[in-house]
Amino acid sequence: MSPTARFLEGWHAYVADLDPKRLDDLLAENVLFHAPAYLKPRRGRLEAKLILTNVTQVFEEFRYHRQLVQGNDMVLEFSARIGDKKLKGIDFITVDEAGKAIDFEVMIRPINALQALFEAMMARLNAGNTGARA
Amino acid sequence: MSPTARFLEGWHAYVADLDPKRLDDLLAENVLFHAPAYLKPRRGRLEAKLILTNVTQVFEEFRYHRQLVQGNDMVLEFSARIGDKKLKGIDFITVDEAGKAIDFEVMIRPINALQALFEAMMARLNAGNTGARA
Repeated sequence: MSPTARFLEGWHAYVADLDPKRLDDLLAENVLFHAPAYLKPRRGRLEAKLILTNVTQVFEEFRYHRQLVQGNDMVLEFSARIGDKKLKGIDFITVDEAGKAIDFEVMIRPINALQALFEAMMARLNAGNTGARA
Repeated sequence: MSPTARFLEGWHAYVADLDPKRLDDLLAENVLFHAPAYLKPRRGRLEAKLILTNVTQVFEEFRYHRQLVQGNDMVLEFSARIGDKKLKGIDFITVDEAGKAIDFEVMIRPINALQALFEAMMARLNAGNTGARA
């Protein structure tokens, strides 16, 4: 199984059950995470887990669409909703030879949904939310 | 030559010389253009040309990086600058069998650069700018 196929199998299992323990196997220890709101990336599995487990609580009707894979790079297209704001986005992910993400970049459009995501994430993170489901 | 290879050859020639006449061959007449600021797409080659020729005037230090191609879909990663704001983005493009874009979606991060792009584009379009170089 190729590194990308291995990652994708685990990633889609994570998206299906949102068990945060799966992320330990999917993210390299020093993964660089590029959030859609900030230019500067965050480094490390703990940071990435905190963001990913919270963002999955904020998105409603999350669904993946097209998936492009080339070498160790992948682009996963998605749609979702935050309150009354529909959005489109992509995950641009690079994996190492073990199939663990070493670079994870997220982009979102349009502006009003990105702003709503940013505000919802700030509220959750400032409240010390660890991403566990309520 | 595959439809994507044909598009990419013409597209990179356009990015190199910014001759707007090249876009007539690169965009299908009914292309759907999804700007990063709005959810609702604009339809038609004229609309897409207006946006593309203006956005290329707003971006500084525009540069393409990774390029993923699968079937008739492509993702082109880029970086640029607007004033003092650095940005990352992607073009997610689908071509028809003739290699003309029928769907063109752009996503940009982070928020402050997307906001700066939106404001610069509004100023240009409200001034009736046709995208011709000054």
